[in-house]
Amino acid sequence: MILFQDQIVEKTTVQISPDDRGYYFGDGIYEVFRVYNGELFAKEAHFERLIRTAAATKIQLPYSIEELTANLNKLLYAERIGEGIVYVQITRGIAPRAHPFPVNSVPVVYAYCIEVKRPLHSMKQGITALTLPDIRWLRCDLKTLNLLANVLAKQEALDGEADEAILHRDGWVTECSASNIMMVKAGVLHTHPANHLILHGITRAIVLKIAAELKLPIVEEAFNLEALRTADEVFITGTTVEVTPVIAIDHAKVANGLIGSITLQLQQAFELKFLR
Amino acid sequence: MILFQDQIVEKTTVQISPDDRGYYFGDGIYEVFRVYNGELFAKEAHFERLIRTAAATKIQLPYSIEELTANLNKLLYAERIGEGIVYVQITRGIAPRAHPFPVNSVPVVYAYCIEVKRPLHSMKQGITALTLPDIRWLRCDLKTLNLLANVLAKQEALDGEADEAILHRDGWVTECSASNIMMVKAGVLHTHPANHLILHGITRAIVLKIAAELKLPIVEEAFNLEALRTADEVFITGTTVEVTPVIAIDHAKVANGLIGSITLQLQQAFELKFLR
Repeated sequence: MILFQDQIVEKTTVQISPDDRGYYFGDGIYEVFRVYNGELFAKEAHFERLIRTAAATKIQLPYSIEELTANLNKLLYAERIGEGIVYVQITRGIAPRAHPFPVNSVPVVYAYCIEVKRPLHSMKQGITALTLPDIRWLRCDLKTLNLLANVLAKQEALDGEADEAILHRDGWVTECSASNIMMVKAGVLHTHPANHLILHGITRAIVLKIAAELKLPIVEEAFNLEALRTADEVFITGTTVEVTPVIAIDHAKVANGLIGSITLQLQQAFELKFLR
Repeated sequence: MILFQDQIVEKTTVQISPDDRGYYFGDGIYEVFRVYNGELFAKEAHFERLIRTAAATKIQLPYSIEELTANLNKLLYAERIGEGIVYVQITRGIAPRAHPFPVNSVPVVYAYCIEVKRPLHSMKQGITALTLPDIRWLRCDLKTLNLLANVLAKQEALDGEADEAILHRDGWVTECSASNIMMVKAGVLHTHPANHLILHGITRAIVLKIAAELKLPIVEEAFNLEALRTADEVFITGTTVEVTPVIAIDHAKVANGLIGSITLQLQQAFELKFLR
């Protein structure tokens, strides 16, 4: 079953119009919620970001957050998902193709939920990454459907026999194709500031909060590729990846290629806080 | 009628899948052809660009250019369009949402044609423009479905009571929200070079060719806002706008607010060459 507008319906009954602005302009926004124990995780933060993205793109949310929450919960219940994700997207609506916002068009809401297990293997073994130029637009803080640059980066990483792409602008590391990145150097946690160049990841914020509780020194400033390559620990954060170590970058080991102690500490604190 | 894959069908029978990567990633490419006298205008150049964009985004064209041409012509014939446009888009295909390219997915081709008259009024009277920061990605030479930045710029121009947005990166003029831009200064035609920061407009290339034939000096180099504001003539070029003068920028007149002589010369040469 899926959510279409405010109805839970069979997916096969849903027809997207070729005049949906999401289809020809990518004119829409989205969120991916984590589901733990059959419940939407950190839902307030996700809805807050959805509201902010809708405001910045001037897409009118067609339902209240209360209605949307109730419908996503109905969907979760219908699909009986315990551990998974809920994806929801909202496009500006249906109208003949023209750049200006259409008058009186109704936004199109589409959501599904599927089972996605926690990536325990990657979290334990680590992943590999390739560094690539960040060619995205200058509003990476907005979670929109314009994701072709992310798609191309991810695929280029895979083609280069790595798991993820680490993006940089002129050598300054921003984030990954679908996750944020942090590094540890001399006991200090470094990550790019939450400005227009990165997505303001919910898990990023949670991890920074946990790190602060653990009294880890935190520097929210851009760091360069040189610093990244000589880091003691590197890990990515994201709704589905949680805290996943990066053990090799551009086919060279990070530190000794083992999972660092601060990465482990943050993984454990995250589990302890939310999953026990 | 529309073209869907290789069939001319009623638009109402077409159902886009919510799993179409065009819908959730904007993962697709497109072209807009001008139709004059019932025929695709400059079709070789448009197909060449489509092939180049497909290669850069690694989208496999599912039909040969010969097949696609034949089908677009069938569509034109079915719709009996004399003066209009043909829009064609090709998405990477249908698959559950995941960044990596799907294996074995079949690209989705969708095209329509509609009547669009030549904008003779704007071409004669000129349009107004607002300058705005160019926040798009760094592959503006690719005609992809990731057009949200263009959409937002166009709407911001309209909200500012102008017709079009003139985009600039740190003060260096690139192009407009859906057209290229040129200016004339002391008898010299200036326009941004055809690199990764602008769309390589077919009309842009045609106008440069005409200008060369008219022995006008041409400088393909980025110019800044200061130069733009003190230009003798400014005009935009595009498939539907042809050569349209810009008579005011940020609510200030360009030169004396009248259409410049080189703009007129280029408009007339274009007409003479292609429309008589």
